[in-house]
Amino acid sequence: MLNGDTRLIGHVGYPTTTFKSPMIYNPWFAKRGINVAVVPLGVRAENFAAAFPQICRFTNFHGALITMPHKVSVIAFLDEVSTAVRVAGSCNAVRRDADGRLIGDMFDGAGFVRGLSRHSRSLDGKSVLIVGSGGVGSAIAASAAAAGAAKVAIYDVNVPAMEGLAERLEQHYPRLTVSGGSNDPSGFDVVVNATPLGMRAGDPMPLDVSRLAPATFVCEVVLKPKTTAFLAAAKARGCETQVGIDMLFEQIPAYLEFFGFPSATAAELREVAEVDS
Amino acid sequence: MLNGDTRLIGHVGYPTTTFKSPMIYNPWFAKRGINVAVVPLGVRAENFAAAFPQICRFTNFHGALITMPHKVSVIAFLDEVSTAVRVAGSCNAVRRDADGRLIGDMFDGAGFVRGLSRHSRSLDGKSVLIVGSGGVGSAIAASAAAAGAAKVAIYDVNVPAMEGLAERLEQHYPRLTVSGGSNDPSGFDVVVNATPLGMRAGDPMPLDVSRLAPATFVCEVVLKPKTTAFLAAAKARGCETQVGIDMLFEQIPAYLEFFGFPSATAAELREVAEVDS
Repeated sequence: MLNGDTRLIGHVGYPTTTFKSPMIYNPWFAKRGINVAVVPLGVRAENFAAAFPQICRFTNFHGALITMPHKVSVIAFLDEVSTAVRVAGSCNAVRRDADGRLIGDMFDGAGFVRGLSRHSRSLDGKSVLIVGSGGVGSAIAASAAAAGAAKVAIYDVNVPAMEGLAERLEQHYPRLTVSGGSNDPSGFDVVVNATPLGMRAGDPMPLDVSRLAPATFVCEVVLKPKTTAFLAAAKARGCETQVGIDMLFEQIPAYLEFFGFPSATAAELREVAEVDS
Repeated sequence: MLNGDTRLIGHVGYPTTTFKSPMIYNPWFAKRGINVAVVPLGVRAENFAAAFPQICRFTNFHGALITMPHKVSVIAFLDEVSTAVRVAGSCNAVRRDADGRLIGDMFDGAGFVRGLSRHSRSLDGKSVLIVGSGGVGSAIAASAAAAGAAKVAIYDVNVPAMEGLAERLEQHYPRLTVSGGSNDPSGFDVVVNATPLGMRAGDPMPLDVSRLAPATFVCEVVLKPKTTAFLAAAKARGCETQVGIDMLFEQIPAYLEFFGFPSATAAELREVAEVDS
């Protein structure tokens, strides 16, 4: 129940329709008696630079969850960022410290690695193909490297973004084999769709699913629909898969700590969440 | 339950702690299955000019409730205002029309008059003293004049504000007797505290309560505490009183129509509201 003492976590992005976080965090805050609410704030890309500093100045601002299309552009507005943000080049969580400084972190990749771990999959020594080098794709690449992957391949139609990520990976992980420029999934242990393709009916596949081997573990970042056409095709090929919502639930305990709340397990969060999880 | 399709009515003011509207509107929206939420957005005076246009650009912005200290300054940001806004010189409700134009109206005064009517009090031919000529005091003065008061007296330590309101009243209501400069309540039919005095323990009284006659009807705009020291003193003098929350509930049906929702009676709203009403 919102009231005058409610502190806000602005969920900043556009479009808002696919947002799931309010229905995950808010029931948990209510259950724990924490007077905080995740509130969707629809902000278009062209308005972000003007809107974001104002959102952070709301006197009841507690923090922000940053989503598409602002995960990269938000960094310019922060006073301090984590290593994950530096490597990924993107940020999805902001809090304000006692001095009013804005602190940014990035948990998309942590959710990916923890989700794999929940499926008893380790990334140690493995090869990973990530299609999409935007905010979430970059975060996944950074976390895969940090988790010990031997090879990370990146594909994006946005060549400068792809090359920039490859350079940052090579710079921070000199023993990692980094490649870019192909979305052929043959021979990879793990393949991730980190593009928005699949949100809309009729979207093209992010890669040629006929080249997926059944042993490849296939991950999705799109949250809605839960099973995208890409995941359905991967399953039809015999692949084990991880839906986008898994990555979301796995990363939330890390956010809760970041925002200064008691932590919770993904299972505890799923129990009270008002989403199909 | 907030979700990605929730449309926002930003409740813009500072401080937010005394806000009651979220607990009045939101349970009613929930009961009626309307996916809209009144969300407190704490904005300091010095940030308003930068923050307000950004709030109105949120893609899920439905409208705004404007409260202290922004009811006057908001007018400069609007494309169209009602007659009530022009006379009162203040605005407490903003909506965006289909063309993106911002439309402002002012309902504080309407709530005051409807609240009196609920107490079987008419303003026709009566004398009214209004202490405080800010947003809410000006709105009450304008509504009292529109409701047929014969005499309106205004008092404010801010002399230019007081004189400006007196001039606008004389201009729009040439047959009204307007006076200013004294907060002596002797001889008035209705006396209103329209200042924030009473919100904090130890605030001085808005006027000399020892000069209140028992026949005078005494009104308060402060919402919290519900019974201010001023109202308590007026009751002790034998006066009938109206608490700030009455004015709030009486004006809400007018807001609902303004925002394009089905209307409701004050009684229906009180039934579901999560406030001590």
